[in-house]
Amino acid sequence: MDLYNQLSELGRRRAIFYPAFEIYGGVSGFNNYGPIGSLLKQNIEQKWRQRFVYREGMVELETTITMPEQVFLASGHVAHFTDIMTRCSQCGKVFRVDLLLNDLKIKSSEGLAPQAFDALIAKHGVNCPDCKGKLLPSEPFNLMFQTQIGSLDTKQIGYGRPEAGQGQFLDFKRLYAAAREKLPLGIAQIGRCVRNEIAPRKGPIRLREFTIIDYEIFFDPKDHSYPAIKLIQDQRLRILSASEQLAGSDTVKEVTVRDALAENVVGNEILCYFMAIAVTFLEELGIPFDKQRLREQLPDEKAHYSEQTFDQEVWLDRWGWTEVSGHAYRTDYDLRNHMTHSGEDLRVYKTFETPQNTIQITVKPIKESLIEDFGNRKADQILLLLSKSDLTIVARELQTKGFYELTGRYPVKLTATHLRIEEKRVEATGWYFIPHVVEPSFGIDRIVYATLEYAYSRKKKRIHLALPRDIAPIKAMIYPLVSRDGLPDIATHVYRSLLDEGFVVRYDSSGSIGRRYARADEIGVPICITIDYQSVEDNTVTLRDLYTWTQVRTAVPDLVDLLQKYYRKKCEFTDLGELL
Amino acid sequence: MDLYNQLSELGRRRAIFYPAFEIYGGVSGFNNYGPIGSLLKQNIEQKWRQRFVYREGMVELETTITMPEQVFLASGHVAHFTDIMTRCSQCGKVFRVDLLLNDLKIKSSEGLAPQAFDALIAKHGVNCPDCKGKLLPSEPFNLMFQTQIGSLDTKQIGYGRPEAGQGQFLDFKRLYAAAREKLPLGIAQIGRCVRNEIAPRKGPIRLREFTIIDYEIFFDPKDHSYPAIKLIQDQRLRILSASEQLAGSDTVKEVTVRDALAENVVGNEILCYFMAIAVTFLEELGIPFDKQRLREQLPDEKAHYSEQTFDQEVWLDRWGWTEVSGHAYRTDYDLRNHMTHSGEDLRVYKTFETPQNTIQITVKPIKESLIEDFGNRKADQILLLLSKSDLTIVARELQTKGFYELTGRYPVKLTATHLRIEEKRVEATGWYFIPHVVEPSFGIDRIVYATLEYAYSRKKKRIHLALPRDIAPIKAMIYPLVSRDGLPDIATHVYRSLLDEGFVVRYDSSGSIGRRYARADEIGVPICITIDYQSVEDNTVTLRDLYTWTQVRTAVPDLVDLLQKYYRKKCEFTDLGELL
Repeated sequence: MDLYNQLSELGRRRAIFYPAFEIYGGVSGFNNYGPIGSLLKQNIEQKWRQRFVYREGMVELETTITMPEQVFLASGHVAHFTDIMTRCSQCGKVFRVDLLLNDLKIKSSEGLAPQAFDALIAKHGVNCPDCKGKLLPSEPFNLMFQTQIGSLDTKQIGYGRPEAGQGQFLDFKRLYAAAREKLPLGIAQIGRCVRNEIAPRKGPIRLREFTIIDYEIFFDPKDHSYPAIKLIQDQRLRILSASEQLAGSDTVKEVTVRDALAENVVGNEILCYFMAIAVTFLEELGIPFDKQRLREQLPDEKAHYSEQTFDQEVWLDRWGWTEVSGHAYRTDYDLRNHMTHSGEDLRVYKTFETPQNTIQITVKPIKESLIEDFGNRKADQILLLLSKSDLTIVARELQTKGFYELTGRYPVKLTATHLRIEEKRVEATGWYFIPHVVEPSFGIDRIVYATLEYAYSRKKKRIHLALPRDIAPIKAMIYPLVSRDGLPDIATHVYRSLLDEGFVVRYDSSGSIGRRYARADEIGVPICITIDYQSVEDNTVTLRDLYTWTQVRTAVPDLVDLLQKYYRKKCEFTDLGELL
Repeated sequence: MDLYNQLSELGRRRAIFYPAFEIYGGVSGFNNYGPIGSLLKQNIEQKWRQRFVYREGMVELETTITMPEQVFLASGHVAHFTDIMTRCSQCGKVFRVDLLLNDLKIKSSEGLAPQAFDALIAKHGVNCPDCKGKLLPSEPFNLMFQTQIGSLDTKQIGYGRPEAGQGQFLDFKRLYAAAREKLPLGIAQIGRCVRNEIAPRKGPIRLREFTIIDYEIFFDPKDHSYPAIKLIQDQRLRILSASEQLAGSDTVKEVTVRDALAENVVGNEILCYFMAIAVTFLEELGIPFDKQRLREQLPDEKAHYSEQTFDQEVWLDRWGWTEVSGHAYRTDYDLRNHMTHSGEDLRVYKTFETPQNTIQITVKPIKESLIEDFGNRKADQILLLLSKSDLTIVARELQTKGFYELTGRYPVKLTATHLRIEEKRVEATGWYFIPHVVEPSFGIDRIVYATLEYAYSRKKKRIHLALPRDIAPIKAMIYPLVSRDGLPDIATHVYRSLLDEGFVVRYDSSGSIGRRYARADEIGVPICITIDYQSVEDNTVTLRDLYTWTQVRTAVPDLVDLLQKYYRKKCEFTDLGELL
C-alpha cells in the first residue's frame, strides 16, 4: 500500500476525508471532510488568514459561487476555460486528450489546439484504450458547471465559479474605497469552486468541487515594492526556473529572496514576497523545505496575459511533484476586461508626490463620423464608454493596429476616422491607471492532503499522525482512568474548563489508556490528559505528548493557562509540568 | 429611511454587505460580504460552533454543494421542492402565486396545490399587477439549480444543494461508526446553499445563494432525553403555539423549559434543548429576548413527516416577525428514504441494558411467488432489499394498506401473496432501528442582518454599531496621534504585538482622532487605542470604549493580557486601566 492508500483507509475509518455519496456508489471528483478533516481544514484556513491577511493588513471578501454569464464572458472563461477531449467512435467513452497521451508517454501540453492533438493522435496511431476503437476529432469541452438563474421571464445563464478571484475584480472599486484608497491592497477569498473535470482522478488532487484561496493583490504598476520584504531578505527559496527547464534540466537552485530579486529570477517584489511566505507557511504545516520547489511556468503553460507565474510544488508519494499553489503576475488583464465588458470605470487616481512632466494623450472622438457610421443612440453609448477608457491604450491600439475595438455590450471597431489623437506635454499632479495584480492562489484540499501525508508515519507499527500542534483538530483528549471513585468528576471538570476557554477537546472513557492513546495518535491529538487515582488525592493529572510520547504531571488549576501558552507556541511540552 | 435602508447605505459604504455583480447591474437574490461583513459572519459562525457543537461534544461535517440527482430524488426535493408560479398571458412576467395573493391581502398558504391557487385567482378576479393581463394556470416551479455532471459519456443530472442537511444523512453511518456508535449524535454543517427563488426580494432575507447551518441530531426514538437540559430548566421561552394561532390569536406565552416539556408544549427534550440555547445564542448576539419568539408551525405549514416544528422568529424593522432558524422533529423520514433509494442499511443496533420481552416480527418472503411475479433476477434484488428493511414497517403497511411498496431503484408493490408475517414473543438483547432526527437549522445571512439591525443606532447623530465584543470584526484600532516624534514606532509595536497574538486589528493614522473614532464606531470596533505624546514618556496609551465612549489609560506591556481577558469576557472595559 502506498501512502495515499494508507491515508485513504485512515481517512475513511476515522472520518477525516472520504468519497462523497458513497451510499449511491459515489461520483468521481467529489470528496467530503468528516469531523476531523473539517476541523483540520478550518485550522489551516484560519492559519492562512492570520499569516497572509491579518498580519499583512489586508482584507477578505465573501462573494457568491453562482455567477451570471457576463462575469465569465468578460473573464474569458466562457471562451477559454476548456480541456480538449476526444470520444471513442465505438464505445463512446470520453478522454481528456492530454492525459490520454501522457499515459502513453507521448509528450504534449495542456495548452495545445484540438488540431495539434489530432495530429499527435494520428502520428502515434492512438486508439481508444478501452475498446481499441477509432477516436473522433478532438474538441474543446468547457469545464464550467452551467445552470439557469431565474424562471421563464427573467432567466439567464449562470455558472458555478471555477475560481474565487472574479469576486475581487468585480468588487474592487467598492473595496478600494472602503480601504480608503490604499495600494497595495490585497483581497483574499476562501471558498468553494467547481470544475466539471472530464476525467477526475488522483483522489483529492483533481476534484470537481474544491476549496480555493484566491488572493488578489492590487498595486500601482509603477511601484511593485513591498516594504515587509526587508524582513525576509535572507530567506532561501528553491527555484526551478523556466530557462533551466527549457535547457532540459530540472535542477533546483537555492537563492535568497534578495538574490532572486536582484538577479531578476523573480521579476516582482510583491510576487516574490508572498511566494516566500507561502514556503514558510507550508513548512509550518510540516512540509519540509526540501520537499517543496517553486517551478516557473514555461511560456506555453503560462496564461497569455501573465508576466510570470510560479507553481509552488510539493513532493507527494504517489504523484511526485504536485502544484499546491500558483503565483501569477496577472498585470491589469482582469480589471481591464471587466472594464470593457461592464462599461464601468475601474481605474484609480493617484496623486504624484511632486507634479511630473508627462505626455498627456487626448483622444477626441469625432462625433459626426460616429453618428454617421453608428447612428445617434449608439454614438452616445460609444462616447460614454470612451470617456471611461484608458486613452493610452486607445491611442496605442489605433497607432499599431489601425483600429480600437470596444468589446462588451456594444462591440464596435473605431478607426482614425472616428478618433483624433493629440499628445501634449503637461505638468500633471496625478494619474489614472488600472492597478496591476499579483495573484497567489492556493488549493486547500491539496494542502490538507499534503499536510496529512507529511504528518503520517508508523511508530511501533501503529499509525502516528504528527500534525503540528497549532493546526491539530482536537487539542486534548480527557481520559478518566476508570469510570468510578470520583475520577469522572475531575475529568468532567477538566473537560468543561478547557471547553469554556474555546479549546476543541474530547472526553473518552472507554478501553485501556493504551488503546485510547493509540486512537488519539491516529488523528493527531497533541495532548492526552489522564485522570487517575492520584488525581483524587492531589488534583494533578498526567499529560502525554503526541510527538515524543513523553509524560508530565501537572496541577489541574494550571491546565488552562499552560495549554494556552503551549498552543500559542510560548512553551514546549516539557515545560507543562514535572517530567515523569 | 427605515432601518434596512440605513443599514444598506452603511453596508455599501463600509463594505459590510452589498448586492453582488453591481458593475453588471446586479442579479436579484445575490449579496456579497465585504471585509467587515465576512469577519462578522465568520465570528458568528465560530461562536455557533463553540456553543452548539464543541460544548455539546458534537461534530461538524463538510460535504459538497453539488450533488447528483439520486440524492434529491430520495430526499423528495425533485418532486416537492417547488413554489407555485403563474405567468401573465400578455406580458410574460412570472409571479410566485402565494406572494402575489399576499400582496393583495388575499389569504392563502405556501403549501396549496396549483388548482387551489387558481381557484383563489378566479374567485378574486386577480390579473397581472403590471399589465392587467390574464394569468395562466398555476404550475409548480422547482427551486433547485440544475446542472450536468460529467461529459458526454458519463453525464448525469446534478443539483446545487438547497439545504445542507443531506450530507449528514448520506454520511450518517460512517460518522456514527467514527463516533464509536454514540447516540445522540449531532452532526452540523455550515455551508452555502442555492435556491432559484422565483422572485427574490427583501434584500438579505430571501437570497438565491445563502449560508445555512443544518444541524442533524440523531437519537434513539425510544429515548429523546438530553441530560444537559437540567442546566437550563428554568430558562424562559416565548412560545406562540399552534393552538393559539388556530384560535386566531398571536399571544406569546412565556414558559420555562421545564414547563414547556411537562405540559407537552414542546414534545421532545432534544428539540426543546437546542431551541432554548438558540434563544440564548441570539440574545448574546444582541437580539433582545422580547424581540424573539418561537412560533409553532401549523399543521398545513409543517412538512408531512415532521412531528413538530418551531420557527425562531426575530422582529425586524421592515419585515416584522421573520424566521431566522427552524427547529423540526423530522422523525426517521430522511434516513428511511435514503435507505430505500440506495439499498444501503442505515439502521443502527443497540443492546438493551437488560434483555427485554419483545414481539419479534418476521416477514418471510415467499420466494416462489416473487419469482413468479417478478422473475428470478428481480426476486433476488427484492430479497436483498427486504433483508435491509425495517420489518415493523413492512408488517404495519401490509396490515393497514394491504401492500408494501419498495421505492428507489426497484419499485415494486408487494402483497400478502409475496410476504408472510409472523409475530413471536421473544427475549431480545437489543434491536435494530433507524435513528430519529431533530434538526435545528439556521439562516446565517438573516442572523447576520438581524445582529446588525439590533447593533445599529445613532449616538449624537453619528452611526453607532454596538456589536457585542466577542463577534466584533475588528478588535482594536491603533491610532498614532501624529505621524512623527516616535509615536508611529510605539503604535507599530502595539499593532504588531496584538497581531502576533491573533487579534484582528487595524492601524489608522489619518484624520483627527475624533474622525477616526467616528469611523471605528460605524463598524463596531470595541476598543480604540491612541498613542500620544505621553506614550513616548511613560509607555502608556489611551483605550476608548465603543459602547460608552469612556476612556482609560493603560501601560503598553499589559495590553495583550488585558485585551485577552476582555475578549474572553473575564473583565469589563473599566477594568482595563485607570479611568480618565
